[in-house]
Amino acid sequence: MDKAIQRAEKIMAQINELAAISEESQGITRLFGTSAFLQGSHTLLAWMKAAGLDSRIDNIGNVRGRLPSADSHAKTLVIASHIDTVRNAGKFDGPLGVIMGLDIVTHIIQSRTELPFHIELIAFSDEEGVRYHTTYLGSKVVAGSFETNLLQKKDDAGITLQETIVQMKGDPGQLKTDAIAPEEWLGYFEIHIEQGPVLYERDIPVAIVTAIAGQKRAEISFTGVAGHAGTVPMHMRQDALCCAAAFILETEKLALNHSIVATVGKLQITGAASNTIPGTVTCSLDLRSADEATAAAAYEELYNTCITICSKRNITVRWQLVQQTAPIACDAGLNALLAQAVTECGYPLIEMPCGAGHDAVAVSAVSPVAMLFVRCFKGISHNPEEDVELKDIAAAIKVSDNFIHQLIRSR
Amino acid sequence: MDKAIQRAEKIMAQINELAAISEESQGITRLFGTSAFLQGSHTLLAWMKAAGLDSRIDNIGNVRGRLPSADSHAKTLVIASHIDTVRNAGKFDGPLGVIMGLDIVTHIIQSRTELPFHIELIAFSDEEGVRYHTTYLGSKVVAGSFETNLLQKKDDAGITLQETIVQMKGDPGQLKTDAIAPEEWLGYFEIHIEQGPVLYERDIPVAIVTAIAGQKRAEISFTGVAGHAGTVPMHMRQDALCCAAAFILETEKLALNHSIVATVGKLQITGAASNTIPGTVTCSLDLRSADEATAAAAYEELYNTCITICSKRNITVRWQLVQQTAPIACDAGLNALLAQAVTECGYPLIEMPCGAGHDAVAVSAVSPVAMLFVRCFKGISHNPEEDVELKDIAAAIKVSDNFIHQLIRSR
Repeated sequence: MDKAIQRAEKIMAQINELAAISEESQGITRLFGTSAFLQGSHTLLAWMKAAGLDSRIDNIGNVRGRLPSADSHAKTLVIASHIDTVRNAGKFDGPLGVIMGLDIVTHIIQSRTELPFHIELIAFSDEEGVRYHTTYLGSKVVAGSFETNLLQKKDDAGITLQETIVQMKGDPGQLKTDAIAPEEWLGYFEIHIEQGPVLYERDIPVAIVTAIAGQKRAEISFTGVAGHAGTVPMHMRQDALCCAAAFILETEKLALNHSIVATVGKLQITGAASNTIPGTVTCSLDLRSADEATAAAAYEELYNTCITICSKRNITVRWQLVQQTAPIACDAGLNALLAQAVTECGYPLIEMPCGAGHDAVAVSAVSPVAMLFVRCFKGISHNPEEDVELKDIAAAIKVSDNFIHQLIRSR
Repeated sequence: MDKAIQRAEKIMAQINELAAISEESQGITRLFGTSAFLQGSHTLLAWMKAAGLDSRIDNIGNVRGRLPSADSHAKTLVIASHIDTVRNAGKFDGPLGVIMGLDIVTHIIQSRTELPFHIELIAFSDEEGVRYHTTYLGSKVVAGSFETNLLQKKDDAGITLQETIVQMKGDPGQLKTDAIAPEEWLGYFEIHIEQGPVLYERDIPVAIVTAIAGQKRAEISFTGVAGHAGTVPMHMRQDALCCAAAFILETEKLALNHSIVATVGKLQITGAASNTIPGTVTCSLDLRSADEATAAAAYEELYNTCITICSKRNITVRWQLVQQTAPIACDAGLNALLAQAVTECGYPLIEMPCGAGHDAVAVSAVSPVAMLFVRCFKGISHNPEEDVELKDIAAAIKVSDNFIHQLIRSR
C-alpha cells in the first residue's frame, strides 16, 4: 500500500479521535476554553509528546511542540492550524492542519532529517472566535500582537477572557512571553481544507493560496413607507424590500464584474406581514477581495450604486461599515517552493486567493506565510457534512514533505 | 357654520368616544368579543336607541338599528360598517361608516323623510378577523352565509367561537335567524376610509368604489445551496436570496405592467448569517385585482417568470397558493346614483377599485352593494396615525344624503 495513504489513515484516525471530544453529544463543538476544548488540547499534547516533541500548553491555551535544529541560533518554521471549532462543526476545519503537521514532523524525526531550522508545531486555541466574538486569540499571542484590553472581554455568560485563561491554568500576565520574536521566524506553513468548491469542481487535490482576502462588512437599512398591500397603487409605493432586492442584484452583478465575492447573508423586514408593504428592511453586506484596491473600488462603487437606487425609489438609506480587514499576501518565496513541490509530486498546479480568514492573517505581520488548501467535499464547511478524502490527505502529505525538503535545501 | 360641518363635528366626537374604549390603555384595540368590544357595542346600541331606531345586538354581536318604512312589505337598505379593530388600530377604519350611518339615519328621522324602503343600520362585529383568523363573521351571518363549522374555531387562548358567542349572550343555534333573506335586500351602502393614498395625493374628498379586488396569496420557498461567503466564487453560487430578489423585482414590474397590486411582504432566510450564502429563502406573495381574468393572467405569468428565474439560477422552488378570493363588482345602478350625488354636490367624480377586503364582499352574494371612500391622511391605516379631516366627513355626509334621496326618488 502507498506509504502516504498509510500516513493519511493514521491522520484520519486521530482526526476522528479528536472529533469525538465535544461539548455536546451530537456533533462537534469545542469552543475556546471549554472543558471539551481542554480535553482536546491535552489529547493533542500527549500525541506531541509521544512523537518526541518538546511540548507544552502556553498561557493562551495553544498546544505547542518544538523540534529543534542542532543550530541553536537557527530560525523557526511554524507549522500550525487550530483546534477550536464553531458550534456543530465539521471535523477537518483546523484539526486537519494540526494533525497533518504532527505527521510531517513525526516523519522528519523518524527519517532523522537534519534540520537547518527549528520547527514548531502549534495548535492554535482560538481561530473561530465564537466564544469571545474575536478571532486569532492564539496566533495573536504567538505573533506578539495580542491586545491586553481583550482580557476584559466577556463571553455570553459574563466570564472574562482573563478569567477563562486563569481557569485554563494560563497566566494572563505572561502572554507576552509566549510570542515568537519577529527575528526568529523563518516562515509559517498551514494546511487547511479549502472550505470552497473550486478544487472539488475541478477535481484537483490541493491548491496554493496566493492571498487571504480582506473583508468589508456593512449593515444597510432601507426605509420607505409601510402601507396596505391592497390599497396603495404600485406607482405610489416606497417599498423598502423592492429597493433592497434591487441592491442585492446589483451587488451580485458587481461582484461578478470585479471578480470579488459579495454576499447579502441577512435580511430583516421590520413589522413584516404578508399584506403590508415593507417599510424598513435591514440587511448585511460582506465583501471580500484578495486585492485591497479592488475591494476598495468595488465597495465604493456598490455604495454609489446603492445611493442611486435609493434615490430613484425615494428610499432613505443608512449605510454603516461595521468591520474591515486588509488582505494579506502569501510569501512569493515560500509559494515558489510549494509550487515546485506540487509539480514534482505530479499534481496540477492551481493557485487561488482564500476568502475565509485564517491564523496566517495574524502571523503575516511578523513572518512570511504560506498555506496549502486540501479539497473538501462540495466545498462544505462549518457543518457536520464537512469531508475530506484519504487520497487528498495523502496528496497533501507528499506535497508538504517535498515542500519541507525544498525549504531545507534552500537554507 | 355649514350644517354638514356641524354634523361632522358630532360624528368626530362619537368616533373619539368609541376610540377611548380599548383593551389596552395605549392605542385602540377592540378585538371581536372582548370586554372592550362589548363596551363599545353597548355604547353604540345606546346611541342607536337614542336616535329612535329599533335596536338590538344580534347573536354574532352585530349592533343593529332599524328605521322601518310605512310599507311593511318594502325591501331593506342596509347601511353598515364594522366596530371591531386590528391591534393598535386607527379610530376611523370601521367606526367612520357606522357613525356616519347613524348620522344619516338620524337626519332622515329628523327631516321626517318618508321612506319607500326600510333602513337597517348595522355595526358588524367582526370584519378584521384578528381573533379567529377569519373575516366577515358579522356580515356572513346577516348575508346568511355563515358556515356552522366556524363555531369550533379556537382563538389563541383556545376559546372556541361558540364559547365566545355564548359569553356575549348570543345563541349559536339562532345565528340563522339573524340573516336578512336575499329577497328582502334593496341594497347595501358602506362608507369607509380609503386606506390608500390616491384621494390624498389627488386632493379629492370622496371616491366611488367600482369593485373589491380579488386576492391570491402564495408562499414561495427558494432553495439553493448555503455556503461560506468568503470561499464560494460568485459563478458557483446558488444563492436563494439573489433568486428571491430577482423574483421580487419581476413581481413589481409585472404588477406595474398589469395595473394590479402585488406585494412581497414577508421574507425569511433560513439560518441567516452575514458570512453565509443564503441556502433557503421563503417569502409571501399577495396579488390583487378588481378583475378576475387580469388577476389570473398576472398570477400565471408571475408563476412562469418565477420558474424561469429559478431554472436559470439552479434554484429549487416550492410555490403554494395559500388563499384566494374572487373580486366582486359594486352595483352599477347604485353607483350611477352615487355618481350623480357626487356631481350634484360639486365634487370631482373619481371611481376606483378597492384593494382591501370589506363586509361588502360577504353581502355581495345576496345584495347589490355600493361603497363610498373618504380620503384619509396619506392613506395611512391600521395605525394610530390614521386620520380623516372634518371637511371630508362633511363632504361624505352631503354625498350620502344626496345618494339616499336619489335612491328614495328612484323607487
